Order: sequence, then C-alpha cells, then structure tokens
Amino acid sequence: MEGMPLSMGGLRTLPWFVAGSQVLGVACVVITGVWMGHYRGGYAWNGSAQEFNVHPLCMVLGLVFLYGDAVLVYRVFRNETKRSVKILHALLHMMALIISIVGLVAVFDFHSAAKISHMYSLHSWCGMLTFVLFFLQWLLGLGFFLFPWASAHLRSWYLPLHVFFGLLLLAMSVGSCLLGITEKLLFSIMHLKREHEQRSRCGFPACVRSRTVPCFSTTGKVAPGPDLAETYSKFPGEGVLANILGLLLVCFGVVVGYVVTREDFRRPPNPEEEALSVHFKTLSEGEIPSSP
Amino acid sequence: MEGMPLSMGGLRTLPWFVAGSQVLGVACVVITGVWMGHYRGGYAWNGSAQEFNVHPLCMVLGLVFLYGDAVLVYRVFRNETKRSVKILHALLHMMALIISIVGLVAVFDFHSAAKISHMYSLHSWCGMLTFVLFFLQWLLGLGFFLFPWASAHLRSWYLPLHVFFGLLLLAMSVGSCLLGITEKLLFSIMHLKREHEQRSRCGFPACVRSRTVPCFSTTGKVAPGPDLAETYSKFPGEGVLANILGLLLVCFGVVVGYVVTREDFRRPPNPEEEALSVHFKTLSEGEIPSSP
Repeated sequence: MEGMPLSMGGLRTLPWFVAGSQVLGVACVVITGVWMGHYRGGYAWNGSAQEFNVHPLCMVLGLVFLYGDAVLVYRVFRNETKRSVKILHALLHMMALIISIVGLVAVFDFHSAAKISHMYSLHSWCGMLTFVLFFLQWLLGLGFFLFPWASAHLRSWYLPLHVFFGLLLLAMSVGSCLLGITEKLLFSIMHLKREHEQRSRCGFPACVRSRTVPCFSTTGKVAPGPDLAETYSKFPGEGVLANILGLLLVCFGVVVGYVVTREDFRRPPNPEEEALSVHFKTLSEGEIPSSP
Repeated sequence: MEGMPLSMGGLRTLPWFVAGSQVLGVACVVITGVWMGHYRGGYAWNGSAQEFNVHPLCMVLGLVFLYGDAVLVYRVFRNETKRSVKILHALLHMMALIISIVGLVAVFDFHSAAKISHMYSLHSWCGMLTFVLFFLQWLLGLGFFLFPWASAHLRSWYLPLHVFFGLLLLAMSVGSCLLGITEKLLFSIMHLKREHEQRSRCGFPACVRSRTVPCFSTTGKVAPGPDLAETYSKFPGEGVLANILGLLLVCFGVVVGYVVTREDFRRPPNPEEEALSVHFKTLSEGEIPSSP
C-alpha cells in the first residue's frame, strides 16, 4: 500500500466487502428460516403460532437483507447510468416494503386470533416506527429523485437527509430484529415454564429431559419442536442459534454501512450525467454532495 | 432560506440540535434512575437485585450520554484549538469507560451472587462486544491522535475508521440498552408470575389487584415497588415508561448522529493548525478528510 493512493488500493477490496455482505445477509435469512421452521414449528397462515413464524422471516428478508442490498446498488453498479441504478434502488426497496407488509400482517393476525394486545412492546414500537419512516422515505425518494416533481433546490436540500435516514433506518431495522429475537426467546421460555407446570399438575411425565416437547402458543394450538426447557441461561441450542443470528444481523448492517460511507468506494462523478440528471450538487459553497 | 447559502442558515440551527440532544440525554438518565429507583427497589452494592439496578443507570449514563457528548465536542467547541477539544474528547470517553466498568461489575456481581450464568443473552453478547470495541477504540484513539506515536500515513489511514466505528459504537450502545430494557421487563414479568403462584399456593391474599407487591429477586431478597402483574401486554405503567425510555435513547442517538454527520456543522478548517497538528488530510487525490 505504501506509495499507492489509498483510493486505488481501497477500491480493489470493494468486491470482497460486497461478497461478505451477501454471505452475511443470506446466512441471516437461512438461520431465521431454520429457527422458525425447525425450533418453532414451521409456517402456516391460520392465526396460529405458525403464522407468527412468518413475521421474523419476512422482516429479516425484507427490512434487513433486501433493504441493505437496495442501499448497496450505488456501490455495486458503478458504471451503469445513474437512472438505471435509481430504478433498481427503488424496485428493491419496493420488494422490501411488500415483504415487510406480509410480515406485519402475519403478526397482527396472530395477535388478533390469540386475543393478545397489539403494539405494547418496545420491539413493536421500534419496529413500527422503522416501518413507517421507511415507507415515508420511499415515497419521498420517488417524489424527489425519480419523478421530475421537485425543484433542484428542494432535491439538494433533501439528498443528505435521504442518505442519513437511509442508514439510520438500516440500523433501526437491525435493532428492531434484535429486540424481536430477545422477545421471542424470553416468551418461549415463559410458555414452556407454564406448560411444564400444567403437565406436572395433571400427572404428565416430566418433560425437562425431553428434547421434543410441543410448544404451546397462547391460542392453545400445539406446534412441534424442541424446547428451551433448560431456560435461556443454560445456553440451549435455540438460544445460542438466535444469539448468533443477532450478531450476524449486526455484522450485515456494519458491512453495508461501511461500504456506503467509505469515501473511496463512492461512484466516480460523471459530469455529463450530473448536468442532465436528477442528481444535483448542494448549493452551499465548497460543499461536496453527501450523495449515494 | 431561499437565496441564502444552506451552510450559513444551517449553522444557526446547531445550538438547537445540541440543546435537544442534552435534553434527551438527561431525560434518558433520569428515567432510568426513576425506573430502577422507584419501580425496581432502588440501589445497593451487596449482590442483590438492587446491585443489578446500578447496571442500567451506569450504562445509560456512561455508554450513551457521556459517550454521545464526547462525540459532540467537535461540533460544540468550534473555535477552541483542536488539541484542547481532543483532550476533552478523550477525557469524556475515559469517564464513560470508568462508569461503564462500574455498571459491568454490578451485573457480574449480581449474577455471581444469584448463581445465574454470565453472558448467555443476546443483550450481554451485544453489550460486551460494544464495550470491548469501545475500549479498543479509545486506546487506538489515544495512540494515534493524542500521542505522537503514529506516522502521518497511519493516522490518515485510521482517521475515517475511527469516525465510522465511533458512530457505529453509539448505535450499538443504544441498541444494547434497548435489548436490556426488553430483557429486564420480560424477566420482571416472569419473576412476578412465579411470585403470584407461590403466594396463591401458600394462602397469601391475591395480589393481582395490589399496586405495591414486593418484587422477588432470584436471590430471594425482597425489594419494594409497584408491579408488572397485569403483564407487559396490558400496558402497565412500568412497561410504558421503559418503552418511552427506549424511544428517547433512539432519539438521542439520532440527534447526535445527525449533528456529527451533517456537512455544514463541521469545524471550519484552520490551515495553520492543520499544518502543525496531528490532524491530516487523507493522501488520496481529491479526497476530503472524513474527520471529526
């Protein structure tokens, strides 16, 4: 590296960071799928605990993985026209939005069927705030940058805010997932404790040693799956897997955040395109655009 | 704003953002203090649940509020010499570090006395990762920027990483606090459920209607305080207060993050100081330093 401009040396590492982010993102989706599919009784769409299981999978796939990839397109497609990359950015975010809506419907359906209050936990408050801001950001992004509705002055004012909130929402998505993981693990422990007490009262054989006790949902429906009977503090397989999922989500967010904020990974400026396109330098003197 | 450079108009808003961050930060510390002091039985240093209560207060005060303020000094003290601001930055971070260590000792002490495993939850994994990275970042910051040990090339290489990890660690601190809030609320519900069952078995009067049942810690010690008996999903006062604390912590992180990343809030460059000081432009051509 000595004697070589940092930006040239740095740019060669971009594909490795992008590849790393994709490995991390796919690992997050797969581990969420395995957690809900294997440990929590699989998937359904009937108001049961299995319908709840659709929620984590959709949120990790939509609001983390696809959202992160939508942010990365400006660094991955460096030589394509700005307009094409913008359309891809908007489309990926639209997919993320649709999948998140499916995930939200799943959890509201489950709560309604099980007569559990909606929106009482910190996870739900943070998650809903993230979703609403994401939806607003997507609408504003369309209006300001993809359609010719906003003036140059307005666009240049909104661009750094769009970038700031884009990264903030990625962090909030990851944070909301981590809250959801903690909530799900602790609720599972509570349900299992209650179930063990019910079983011991009605003379059922002790199930502490069993690895395959059914998991009660609050609807009274039974979903098969191994247990957290030893409780979270005894490092059960499910708890460790879910913790690892949490760390991988953080790593995905960190790698995406690093790639999009690193100076020498920015798209090379194209003066011809800049003059024609919907992308404007900010008006203040001497300021560089904090653009995607 | 029309016709005025954005940067001039923008700079006038800086004191409002800084004041807002301080109101939010103090509110977070006060609410944590009230939560632990009023609802969770107050403070002690004897291995009991009251020693645990020192943990949230120290982490919010140290790893969020003081950490955030240490980051803000580069924007607040715009006209002081770079070296003075650096020393203040390092000192505030040192205070944050010491207070965090007290908070960590409190929770390890409590776990040891109550014979609970250490480091099993996602909160503990994320929190410890944040603390270790923060400690490393502080040591590297001292070595690279405050003492004349590193070469100009090394400093210019590390500077953007220091800035990136500084903001990342603020986000991770806030995220770890949110995980801790969720964990604490759900554990409190579990303990209260167990206590209610024990009471009903031994003929104690039903305490569901009581607002002042004592809170059992796993050590068997009793701490006075209102309950979460209606459980989290019935919007008890404690649950709502803790959720609001979570949102305020997010807001504090967002305001600090916004102030330090906004282009027109940067310190004005001082060529004389730049030439003399430990702050260097990056070596790559045309690149602006992503400096604090």
